[in-house]
Amino acid sequence: MKVLVLNGPNLNRLGKRQPEVYGTTTLRDVEKLIADRAEELGVEVECRQSNHEGDLIDWVHEAADESWPVIINPGGFTHTSVALRDALAEVSDGPGFVEVHISNVHAREDFRAHSYLSAIARGVIAGLGVRGYVLALDWFAARR
Amino acid sequence: MKVLVLNGPNLNRLGKRQPEVYGTTTLRDVEKLIADRAEELGVEVECRQSNHEGDLIDWVHEAADESWPVIINPGGFTHTSVALRDALAEVSDGPGFVEVHISNVHAREDFRAHSYLSAIARGVIAGLGVRGYVLALDWFAARR
Amino acid sequence: MKVLVLNGPNLNRLGKRQPEVYGTTTLRDVEKLIADRAEELGVEVECRQSNHEGDLIDWVHEAADESWPVIINPGGFTHTSVALRDALAEVSDGPGFVEVHISNVHAREDFRAHSYLSAIARGVIAGLGVRGYVLALDWFAARR
Amino acid sequence: MKVLVLNGPNLNRLGKRQPEVYGTTTLRDVEKLIADRAEELGVEVECRQSNHEGDLIDWVHEAADESWPVIINPGGFTHTSVALRDALAEVSDGPGFVEVHISNVHAREDFRAHSYLSAIARGVIAGLGVRGYVLALDWFAARR
Amino acid sequence: MKVLVLNGPNLNRLGKRQPEVYGTTTLRDVEKLIADRAEELGVEVECRQSNHEGDLIDWVHEAADESWPVIINPGGFTHTSVALRDALAEVSDGPGFVEVHISNVHAREDFRAHSYLSAIARGVIAGLGVRGYVLALDWFAARR
Amino acid sequence: MKVLVLNGPNLNRLGKRQPEVYGTTTLRDVEKLIADRAEELGVEVECRQSNHEGDLIDWVHEAADESWPVIINPGGFTHTSVALRDALAEVSDGPGFVEVHISNVHAREDFRAHSYLSAIARGVIAGLGVRGYVLALDWFAARR
Amino acid sequence: MKVLVLNGPNLNRLGKRQPEVYGTTTLRDVEKLIADRAEELGVEVECRQSNHEGDLIDWVHEAADESWPVIINPGGFTHTSVALRDALAEVSDGPGFVEVHISNVHAREDFRAHSYLSAIARGVIAGLGVRGYVLALDWFAARR
Amino acid sequence: MKVLVLNGPNLNRLGKRQPEVYGTTTLRDVEKLIADRAEELGVEVECRQSNHEGDLIDWVHEAADESWPVIINPGGFTHTSVALRDALAEVSDGPGFVEVHISNVHAREDFRAHSYLSAIARGVIAGLGVRGYVLALDWFAARR
Amino acid sequence: MKVLVLNGPNLNRLGKRQPEVYGTTTLRDVEKLIADRAEELGVEVECRQSNHEGDLIDWVHEAADESWPVIINPGGFTHTSVALRDALAEVSDGPGFVEVHISNVHAREDFRAHSYLSAIARGVIAGLGVRGYVLALDWFAARR
Amino acid sequence: MKVLVLNGPNLNRLGKRQPEVYGTTTLRDVEKLIADRAEELGVEVECRQSNHEGDLIDWVHEAADESWPVIINPGGFTHTSVALRDALAEVSDGPGFVEVHISNVHAREDFRAHSYLSAIARGVIAGLGVRGYVLALDWFAARR
Amino acid sequence: MKVLVLNGPNLNRLGKRQPEVYGTTTLRDVEKLIADRAEELGVEVECRQSNHEGDLIDWVHEAADESWPVIINPGGFTHTSVALRDALAEVSDGPGFVEVHISNVHAREDFRAHSYLSAIARGVIAGLGVRGYVLALDWFAARR
Amino acid sequence: MKVLVLNGPNLNRLGKRQPEVYGTTTLRDVEKLIADRAEELGVEVECRQSNHEGDLIDWVHEAADESWPVIINPGGFTHTSVALRDALAEVSDGPGFVEVHISNVHAREDFRAHSYLSAIARGVIAGLGVRGYVLALDWFAARR
Repeated sequence: MKVLVLNGPNLNRLGKRQPEVYGTTTLRDVEKLIADRAEELGVEVECRQSNHEGDLIDWVHEAADESWPVIINPGGFTHTSVALRDALAEVSDGPGFVEVHISNVHAREDFRAHSYLSAIARGVIAGLGVRGYVLALDWFAARR
Repeated sequence: MKVLVLNGPNLNRLGKRQPEVYGTTTLRDVEKLIADRAEELGVEVECRQSNHEGDLIDWVHEAADESWPVIINPGGFTHTSVALRDALAEVSDGPGFVEVHISNVHAREDFRAHSYLSAIARGVIAGLGVRGYVLALDWFAARR
Repeated sequence: MKVLVLNGPNLNRLGKRQPEVYGTTTLRDVEKLIADRAEELGVEVECRQSNHEGDLIDWVHEAADESWPVIINPGGFTHTSVALRDALAEVSDGPGFVEVHISNVHAREDFRAHSYLSAIARGVIAGLGVRGYVLALDWFAARR
Repeated sequence: MKVLVLNGPNLNRLGKRQPEVYGTTTLRDVEKLIADRAEELGVEVECRQSNHEGDLIDWVHEAADESWPVIINPGGFTHTSVALRDALAEVSDGPGFVEVHISNVHAREDFRAHSYLSAIARGVIAGLGVRGYVLALDWFAARR
Repeated sequence: MKVLVLNGPNLNRLGKRQPEVYGTTTLRDVEKLIADRAEELGVEVECRQSNHEGDLIDWVHEAADESWPVIINPGGFTHTSVALRDALAEVSDGPGFVEVHISNVHAREDFRAHSYLSAIARGVIAGLGVRGYVLALDWFAARR
Repeated sequence: MKVLVLNGPNLNRLGKRQPEVYGTTTLRDVEKLIADRAEELGVEVECRQSNHEGDLIDWVHEAADESWPVIINPGGFTHTSVALRDALAEVSDGPGFVEVHISNVHAREDFRAHSYLSAIARGVIAGLGVRGYVLALDWFAARR
Repeated sequence: MKVLVLNGPNLNRLGKRQPEVYGTTTLRDVEKLIADRAEELGVEVECRQSNHEGDLIDWVHEAADESWPVIINPGGFTHTSVALRDALAEVSDGPGFVEVHISNVHAREDFRAHSYLSAIARGVIAGLGVRGYVLALDWFAARR
Repeated sequence: MKVLVLNGPNLNRLGKRQPEVYGTTTLRDVEKLIADRAEELGVEVECRQSNHEGDLIDWVHEAADESWPVIINPGGFTHTSVALRDALAEVSDGPGFVEVHISNVHAREDFRAHSYLSAIARGVIAGLGVRGYVLALDWFAARR
Repeated sequence: MKVLVLNGPNLNRLGKRQPEVYGTTTLRDVEKLIADRAEELGVEVECRQSNHEGDLIDWVHEAADESWPVIINPGGFTHTSVALRDALAEVSDGPGFVEVHISNVHAREDFRAHSYLSAIARGVIAGLGVRGYVLALDWFAARR
Repeated sequence: MKVLVLNGPNLNRLGKRQPEVYGTTTLRDVEKLIADRAEELGVEVECRQSNHEGDLIDWVHEAADESWPVIINPGGFTHTSVALRDALAEVSDGPGFVEVHISNVHAREDFRAHSYLSAIARGVIAGLGVRGYVLALDWFAARR
Repeated sequence: MKVLVLNGPNLNRLGKRQPEVYGTTTLRDVEKLIADRAEELGVEVECRQSNHEGDLIDWVHEAADESWPVIINPGGFTHTSVALRDALAEVSDGPGFVEVHISNVHAREDFRAHSYLSAIARGVIAGLGVRGYVLALDWFAARR
Repeated sequence: MKVLVLNGPNLNRLGKRQPEVYGTTTLRDVEKLIADRAEELGVEVECRQSNHEGDLIDWVHEAADESWPVIINPGGFTHTSVALRDALAEVSDGPGFVEVHISNVHAREDFRAHSYLSAIARGVIAGLGVRGYVLALDWFAARR
């Protein structure tokens, strides 16, 4: 099993941006954390990040073609991107995806309460910090 | 007369994604269908597709410069992109554009009921499958 | 194949009412245009118009009984008539109907943005003038 | 005591339209059911149906003049007709009316959740199939 | 100058229906009042009433053809009829119409606060009882 | 067949609370009325009342286990209890339940217009006084 | 009988402000028109204008003390002043007031559709130009 | 470390209620799963369930007094209970709580999209089935 | 005169929960404060608290039977309990109740701005801390 | 300690306006009641009233300069005046103010449910009649 | 060129009120800053402030008569005054006005997001502190 | 000090697109205007434009790393891009940014009234044409 881990806009700024909300761990640290856990679980992972909606859509198409489950932190696209939802619908019909948010989106601005993606996700993990990615990975591994 | 046919995000997945909604025809098939009809009508067409909003905007600018009418299926950007609307406003003041949706957007999720583009389109065709593109082309040809 | 073409309230005023929105073509001209196209296509059509919601409902029942596809421009009933929707639901389960609007309803008052009928239509054509009826007819013919 | 039973738009299609929602009983069957029950109860009934809002209004006026209680299934007018409500207001001040829906309107589209008539009805029975008319008749009879 | 005075649904019940709201004057009395005033003013009037939306639409078309100004009390259609609005749009572009309500619609249920017609009326008179028709007539006469 | 009749909060106050709305019949009277009718119909009934949401939920679970149809007047919980709805969902999948309101909830405060339960009920009877329970019982009996 | 005619903010600009909406008649002209009509009717009138909400409130109190009916064009306070409504409530319980708008408020911005005053007015006249004041005066005179 | 695991209304029906949504695992199975994992992690857990909002509130108070972190699946109270939120606010200020939903609440009825609790939770896990409890436990253990 | 003082959910946590909002006074302190004041005023009081909505309803019924005025701080039920409102309606028709909030509910989350109870209360005191109970008691005493 | 008591628009009409809502006590009576109580409490008070928003704002500025606590019944400005709120924000940061309403605003029109001032008040007292002012004074005195 | 600079309610409190939002500069300081800049630019300015809406309206009328451009900080009237908007509409048709806010209104309470004035302003400057007035002046000067 | 000036989608069309709204100045002209002013002020500026949201995000990250203040005209992304807001949040915590709109967004379609960016901007300048960029630059320079 190979899992594709996608990080959306601004997640390349982890550790720099609003550390009081997101902590000081960098994206590289997070990807290391995920890779380590994947190795323990005997699962292959690949991590990618982009600030371009179109890149994320292209990568989701790739996952759909390859039947890879997806763990995605869509960043700000969570609340605004129907196009990303439409791409993920294919994965949803197949291996499925889990939506992860590092911060607790429900404790922030009102517009963060709505996600275009959640309705078609297998599940959602929010607010549990960077460990949320690991828990999502554990879940896919346990589901094998 | 040359008509620019633009397909937005995920339309490269035609025939793969939700075939129960969109059928099994691929984008290549659709472009063939359009090209054949264009030839019958003696109209030049060019078909492009992108998952990047910025690409679509660039291409719309090109159409505005060249005074090409546009047939556009904006995919998920229909419901979320003011930037695309602003680009199309120039075409609207000139040769005009027709908005096409393969599926009947009114029969799906509520958020698909609103289009940022329709208010400035010449017209809208929804739910008539891939033939919608052909009907739009017929209309531009008849209007010559 | 016989197609029933229904025009709702005020469409008998075509050519008289708000010509800047609807053009100067009269309903008789439109019906002629449709009949000519039908002949080309080898399709039988019948055109009827009424300002009475009840008449339209009766005629839709007739289409349901006869398994005629319907092309309907519901005029102002588009936005207000659940009763007409309920009648068309039978046709929707059978031969289907296409909703046509001469003007681009999305470019006019806000209350014209919602149609009670679209959700159960095969498709919707709006803003393409009186040629919208012809395109709908083409579509039914092509679908044979 | 004479009770007027009014059926609104599309109820002449009972048994034909959406049988999975409304069953296969025809309007004639329903009127027979009501008539039989009326005879048992020693109550006079008269059943009428129209797809024309104006007819229903005229008949409600007649009921008001004659002081007949009314059982009404307003069909799609339930959600849209202030005019019918205004007519029934007279009956409401007098013998009263009961609103009946064959299907459970609360389990269907959102727009069916609101009735212009319920606020001035004696009561409402929804979802209990064609027996709803009989229960309404029983209630008027018991109230004598 | 000839003025067409149209009364919509339930206004044939004037004097019978909710007399605490509308008073005991009958429609016949009102038409007499209007006719008397018209005579004083040297204006021709014709009064019609219907509970059928389609009739009102037909009569409005007649007024448009004849260039008659219209005084209309649309009853319950005020709040629900886009079709009637569309018909009146023609009169609005020509001789114009005044919307009259006998009762003060703003002091009643919330749904009576919105009129589909007011936006295209010359003016609106509400709450001044049956004298509202006379004031509207005076206004058209003064405008001659 | 055994039918469980559940009364929610404040229904133990029947005959004491707002008699102008609910009449002077006490809950004991109502239960007697139901029991008498059940005997006539050859149906077993059991009536329970609680002001505790948790009790009602427990009893609904019991009905689900025993496959008893339920007649429920949920009182104020109608408008606020998702938990009760979730419990009744099990009954809905099985023997079904009918929601009864003594008063016409549509003629009272706006917040009483929405019920969390109606969408999954077999049907709803409102405004027909304490006879509403009897009509619901008749319906279950007729359905046997 | 003495009638107090109050004009609210910006009505001192009549003839200067937006003449395409309000015409070129000045406030002085309007007051003359009213005074002339009052003399014809044998009614005493007094006209006052202020841009200060507090002045209008004081004057309405005076009218309440003196039992003068009031004709008021509240200008922009129509849509925003609960304080003015509360003052007018006293007049409403006594001699009553008529609300007049020179322009058709329903044909302008959305926020002009709601009036805090209309619900407690005897009636409302809108869109009939400066003759609206005269019609209101006629109505009070006829009511004597 | 001791963790209190609370299950709200209807969760005693796990395995019985809507198995297509919640699976066939019973609450006892789930509690076993949690206990096993706790043992692996060297964490103490205690599981409680109630259909009574008051019981849950009392238990949350106990957790606040004892400084126990809480894992809570609030069932239907998620969407309706401010009282439960207020109780959990104390835990939020202390050891914190994680909100768990077995099903993906975002893929169900609209009213399930809002939680009164999420804004003050450490995090939320939804849609990952009964493993959601285990992941929450893992998180608390990792945070030690 | 005897006054019943009811405290709803979480008020047993006074002095523990969010002391920055509610202060450090415990419920026992508050009840002492009330009792002392009652003695000064020569009024009998009884204080009760519960986290169970059903208990509060039962106690309100007792107050209705005994004609005791009620001072109630409904805690979180303020915003969600129609059932408690229905119970209090009986007291409202009789001796009346005053709603007290220790904190200023209007300065907190939006959902705290609406109370189901206020509309039928004699009055509401919010934000004046635990002295709010005493002021309410003073008011009932002064009203004797 | 000196307390400034401000009464807003129409409160000079106390005893005249809607006595069924506000009672027959005049503003002079109320000010006497407050003065007497102030003397008992050894507190200085000054009472002012204006129908001009600007006057109230000026007086609130004076209170801010003098560090006087304020008791304010803002009348209709409660629901509409951001300017008054902005003035009171200074007092809120200093000695604080209490908002008093004689009638129970929650039992009247919907627009009275929202106050621009409450969110920055120390507290709110509503519906307890003219004694509300006295209770507010007691509270400030007790807080000394 | 002469520019009229108007400051609305509470701006006389600059430097006193919420210095953390508005800074410690007084209105006198601001007017000095503006006057100095005007001198540099060779522009005449006059600064006025009032807490009375009516005064501001009168002054705007004066500007309209004199064809003075206006720089206005409407304070709390921004969000509530249709009357001020109506006055400024005249200036808008002539020399124009610029709306200035010292603080960033978009970063504060929701109700500050809407301005009745912006739609008819030449432009809006918000959040740039007291320099906003100077920038507006620069703009008018550059436009000469 | 170096200031980064970012222009979003369609601003490369300045001078071509809707010249009646935006004027005939091209983007190159605007950048020249800004550069000239920067030279006068002794400030370094760099101007960039993209139709790709991802490019703008990348550039904002660069500004955050370099501690450059930003002047941004986000075009259509203003109303739709949470991702851009999240990127700008970093700049907001540091050197800050000013949002500039050439046209008066408040005078156009309703959807242009809301900006996702304004709440975290230092300030906003709208409607003052291309000089808005210069004013923003002046402000940053004055703030040095």
